[in-house]
Amino acid sequence: MIDTFRLIKSCPDTSARAGELYTAHGPVTTPIFMPVGTQATVKTLTPQELKDIGLSIILANAYHLYLRPGTGLIDKMGGLHNFMKWDRAILTDSGGYQIFSLARLRKVNDEGVVFLSHIDGSQHFITPETAIRIQESIGADVIMVLDECPSYTDGFQKVKQAMERTHRWANSCQQAQKRNDQALFAIVQGGTFTELRHQSATQLKSMGFAGYAIGGLSIGEPKALTRTVVEETAALLPEDKPRYLMGVGSPEDIVHAVAQGIDMFDSVLPTRVARNGALYTWYGRRNIRRTIYSKLEAPFDPDCNCYTCRNFSAAYLNHLFKSKELLAYRLATIHNLTFINNLMNKIRENIVNTTFNSFKKDFLAHYEGTNENLRLDQKEKWLAAHNRNDSG
Amino acid sequence: MIDTFRLIKSCPDTSARAGELYTAHGPVTTPIFMPVGTQATVKTLTPQELKDIGLSIILANAYHLYLRPGTGLIDKMGGLHNFMKWDRAILTDSGGYQIFSLARLRKVNDEGVVFLSHIDGSQHFITPETAIRIQESIGADVIMVLDECPSYTDGFQKVKQAMERTHRWANSCQQAQKRNDQALFAIVQGGTFTELRHQSATQLKSMGFAGYAIGGLSIGEPKALTRTVVEETAALLPEDKPRYLMGVGSPEDIVHAVAQGIDMFDSVLPTRVARNGALYTWYGRRNIRRTIYSKLEAPFDPDCNCYTCRNFSAAYLNHLFKSKELLAYRLATIHNLTFINNLMNKIRENIVNTTFNSFKKDFLAHYEGTNENLRLDQKEKWLAAHNRNDSG
Repeated sequence: MIDTFRLIKSCPDTSARAGELYTAHGPVTTPIFMPVGTQATVKTLTPQELKDIGLSIILANAYHLYLRPGTGLIDKMGGLHNFMKWDRAILTDSGGYQIFSLARLRKVNDEGVVFLSHIDGSQHFITPETAIRIQESIGADVIMVLDECPSYTDGFQKVKQAMERTHRWANSCQQAQKRNDQALFAIVQGGTFTELRHQSATQLKSMGFAGYAIGGLSIGEPKALTRTVVEETAALLPEDKPRYLMGVGSPEDIVHAVAQGIDMFDSVLPTRVARNGALYTWYGRRNIRRTIYSKLEAPFDPDCNCYTCRNFSAAYLNHLFKSKELLAYRLATIHNLTFINNLMNKIRENIVNTTFNSFKKDFLAHYEGTNENLRLDQKEKWLAAHNRNDSG
Repeated sequence: MIDTFRLIKSCPDTSARAGELYTAHGPVTTPIFMPVGTQATVKTLTPQELKDIGLSIILANAYHLYLRPGTGLIDKMGGLHNFMKWDRAILTDSGGYQIFSLARLRKVNDEGVVFLSHIDGSQHFITPETAIRIQESIGADVIMVLDECPSYTDGFQKVKQAMERTHRWANSCQQAQKRNDQALFAIVQGGTFTELRHQSATQLKSMGFAGYAIGGLSIGEPKALTRTVVEETAALLPEDKPRYLMGVGSPEDIVHAVAQGIDMFDSVLPTRVARNGALYTWYGRRNIRRTIYSKLEAPFDPDCNCYTCRNFSAAYLNHLFKSKELLAYRLATIHNLTFINNLMNKIRENIVNTTFNSFKKDFLAHYEGTNENLRLDQKEKWLAAHNRNDSG
């Protein structure tokens, strides 16, 4: 196992940490947000634009890439970095989450999982070993174990069984790993049950992974519960390894989770809401479609350093959205990813300067988070409209 | 009237000409192709990308901008150049074509035309004078007279009346013009009737405009007929003024029309077919969705100097199209506009070097044009699918 992480500073007031992750495609400072490039592209942007924003790592979905264009092709093309022409770090999730949420499941046992593709209904069989083979073909810098993801409504026994299987699969993944240039992360499961999260973290910690993810959250449970589970779980993970909270999230959730000791984040949120016209500010999300922007000659956020705000007026952006012009989605995506990247930089700077706690208080005092019921309602609608194809 | 055009070279074998158009936003070498930026954006691209391709002039639609975001707003924002952040030349069409094809017409008489917006059904009244006011607010470098566009199926009398009204409106437009930094072009009408085209060209020529467009073509008539009309009409236009063939077109049509003495072109074709996956090569259009591209590690066209072909494999582009990723439409648009711009540069270079005739023969010998029936069929389908909103 390669040494991939260095802890640089710990916050004296919270559990926040500043660190550095070393990858074959450059260093990644933590805490870090990874934009989602499900299908070998962060929707609407070129790799150059991602670099211009200052991003150092993106996430891609092994499940989607395995189905299309196929990992054989990506391997032949010299791996995902070369295929999509992104020469900085990539993390791939194993596909566990997608198999248990997008695909139609046929059968799960200790050997692996049989499912039907959400694209064409074709049947596939994925084992922990093939999940590693797939991710080795893709060639990301950080890869994830195959995990079984129970749903939020599942009871204790079902969640426990899924957790235990996840542990056995984690072991199989460890054994199956052949490449030594990829950091393999385990995934802590256990739903919202304290006892199970404790078991899972302890068990996986004893097996020794390059990093630890917290999975099975942000799947519909109340936010307060998410925070409790993150708090309890993060505290059990090794100090000297990176901690990754999967599928989170919003600016306010990121700030909370950093304070709980999380180092890495990914979410489709900033890019997805951007395409819906919702742009981040330090006071919360604002929809650029609103009439107040239609005549505003100034940029959407005059203090923002993103390409969009440096070049275009709010009125122009408002016009592009109203006219359903494709350029709108791209300019909004650039703004939101720049905002999140700036947020992560500020977070890190404040951890390094031991001022994170007051930064956190200040940020949360000004930032109006999205109403939770509204958020769940929007997500439901979105998933229904997109046939549950949660692809970015 | 400002002196806007200089003829630099005439082809000894054909009627092709190389020239230069002077505008308040830089020179435009001719023959030139103007990409269409209907709603204050060339679909999918930023102004910087248009510059990187080498484009010097784009077209915007006064009709669309008048309805949304409104010319009052554009005026307040310092004109269209500032609104969309494009500091090179712009040409606006007057809206005649859109009013007679997109909007629901209520009434046309010598005073003007009453129509219902295709966006919200609201009623509007446009006169030659307001068409000029609108275009002065938008502030393009080249503006067009309001014209009445008969349909291809209209008979001689109807086409003649529309032509005569276009002449009266052209005069009103001339009288109405207040700004002296915009070149006003007339539009020759007369359908496919030689006698009427002759009358229209002669009449408008006598009135003295900064440039002359040929309108009322490429609206469903057979290509052979388009070429005959262009040939006859172009020959009647003044030597020392630019000639603009509206709504054309495909690479093969452009090469033919250049040989007939046309200097300026616009069409949604290169950008629209790009978004459908049809990419130009020197041998004709090829659809990047085809299976032969799905495993091709080389660029779509290894000899192409566009951003897309310099950076990405054909397989990646194929994957983006199959996955319906927004980046696909943008990369394809960059390729097609670069192709057309390269074509125009080659055309001009060959005119200047007096080798245009052999270039033309060579180009047409290799370039397989789109089958005409297929083309008309595709256009019909497209217009039907998009509710006849011919916006780019």
